[in-house]
Amino acid sequence: MTITAQGTVLTEAELSELREAQLSDVENGPESKPPFDLKNYLGSRKKLVETALDGFLPVQAPEKIYEAMRYSLLAGGKRLRPILCLASCELVGGSIDMAMPTACALEMVHTMSLIHDDLPAMDNDDYRRGKLTNHKVYGEDIAILAGDGLLVYAFESIARETKNVPPELVLQTIAHLGRAFGPAGVVGGQVVDLESEGKPDVSLETLDFIHARKTGALLEACVVCGGILAGAADAEVERLSRYARNIGLAFQIIDDILDVTQTQEQLGKTAGKDERSLKATYPRFWGLEESKQRALDLVEAAKAELKPYGSKAIPLQAIADFIVSRQS
Amino acid sequence: MTITAQGTVLTEAELSELREAQLSDVENGPESKPPFDLKNYLGSRKKLVETALDGFLPVQAPEKIYEAMRYSLLAGGKRLRPILCLASCELVGGSIDMAMPTACALEMVHTMSLIHDDLPAMDNDDYRRGKLTNHKVYGEDIAILAGDGLLVYAFESIARETKNVPPELVLQTIAHLGRAFGPAGVVGGQVVDLESEGKPDVSLETLDFIHARKTGALLEACVVCGGILAGAADAEVERLSRYARNIGLAFQIIDDILDVTQTQEQLGKTAGKDERSLKATYPRFWGLEESKQRALDLVEAAKAELKPYGSKAIPLQAIADFIVSRQS
Repeated sequence: MTITAQGTVLTEAELSELREAQLSDVENGPESKPPFDLKNYLGSRKKLVETALDGFLPVQAPEKIYEAMRYSLLAGGKRLRPILCLASCELVGGSIDMAMPTACALEMVHTMSLIHDDLPAMDNDDYRRGKLTNHKVYGEDIAILAGDGLLVYAFESIARETKNVPPELVLQTIAHLGRAFGPAGVVGGQVVDLESEGKPDVSLETLDFIHARKTGALLEACVVCGGILAGAADAEVERLSRYARNIGLAFQIIDDILDVTQTQEQLGKTAGKDERSLKATYPRFWGLEESKQRALDLVEAAKAELKPYGSKAIPLQAIADFIVSRQS
Repeated sequence: MTITAQGTVLTEAELSELREAQLSDVENGPESKPPFDLKNYLGSRKKLVETALDGFLPVQAPEKIYEAMRYSLLAGGKRLRPILCLASCELVGGSIDMAMPTACALEMVHTMSLIHDDLPAMDNDDYRRGKLTNHKVYGEDIAILAGDGLLVYAFESIARETKNVPPELVLQTIAHLGRAFGPAGVVGGQVVDLESEGKPDVSLETLDFIHARKTGALLEACVVCGGILAGAADAEVERLSRYARNIGLAFQIIDDILDVTQTQEQLGKTAGKDERSLKATYPRFWGLEESKQRALDLVEAAKAELKPYGSKAIPLQAIADFIVSRQS
């Protein structure tokens, strides 16, 4: 039971209905409340994040390593990971400032994983986000070190720059990000991805294992760390984690679909690469149509997880929709 | 002024004399107190550290990455860095348990820097500690990821496993290690080292810049982080930092001397490499004799920093002596 501002006592079911109605209000927008504009939201959040990233990493001696780190970190991109982290922190009642160092750290570790994945010894890619990859500009040695530098800087930034959050929650955030990115997460996913390359008989189970770690674990960490910093209770963290795992898998399915259907120019990276290298992808298992449907179902499930938050959940729900509708 | 157990009031000068006398007692050892045995001390601490390292990193799926991480992490070595961290924590009044996760993390980041430094794109070394380097066994791709994995695991371990230390001190430890290892520390030092390679005109200033970061910063972090975890006051942290920077530079000078004077078998890595690659070293600037004398002077200065701790400082003072007398 909950007491509303008007003093009415509502059951959980009535409360849920009321929240849905509020959500629908905001979506359809009475004139006093303009409808939520995702494009504006993403644009303004992206700017906030990029200003913060720029400020976190001023060029010092030795200049070359800072320049190499900045080259990839400030190369654009949607900044979806930090935006998810900020949104999740706000959803649970925290502020943007509380989560900004962690949001930037998430973009740093994501960027470093791209720099190392692009190396000749790994995926050997020359282009990323429409620009030459880090090692094509700075050489392999500096690219390896730029990745290492970003990884360390990420953890240092969370520990040193997070303000107005109880220190034990900052430690939980660091531990969660560490688990998500390390051998049990992104790094482990990349290992199995490399092992599976060129094999014609990769199982759906292995494909799930790879993506739950290589893409999913970090997206999950974005949402969960935002919640932890805002003091989310365990049950809330679980709910945020389910939302994030659903959108993470949807994101990967859409990535696989785009790789088949888009041109290099649209993607900003080498397209059709998965197809040529016989890489296991979801469209190979399910076909394009079923893959798309499954991604849509995952997004619906993700959005449903956030219903108890009512209209506060609109940004994260709209981001979930964006993931299946994006064209690059 | 200090009140002794007997109730006598001592001035700082008298206190300092008393501590010197106690130190001399322990060094010369009355029969009831056997003299400090560094070899036994290092041996038993090394065992403690290796048991902890082994326990921190059990093999899980995907096995290959854990095996590659363990291959280099458990490949032996003196474990000087974690031992310094534990000793410093005890010196300031903390326990071994409080510092063990950080001590292991320091060995993890040190190991990862060796794995990445040995890569073909960097120093291109085939042997390390008498064994094949990581990429010679697992391939370049896995070696890069094993390094990344160890780096992340280090920060996760400190955040997740440190017990009985106020969380704000754990955060300070993470921030200090991050600064020491990142672009302002080890990573930055390696960049300038790579840039200087093969150049005949590297200045002594540049050589100092490289070593203060590539070797010195992490040794400093070992000693300082141990102190921070035990709750050292700012002035104590400064004192520990000066001790550590002195032994760090001495360590590097001795390393340069050993590279000239020892065989590959004695060193467990390719010897004479610095000489052949025209690398700037201290013996090139000062000659062997003066280099040795400067290392001895630095060690004396380091030991002097710890005099106020009296007999408690014996392990760290003995380690300082060990650094200039070591043969590999």
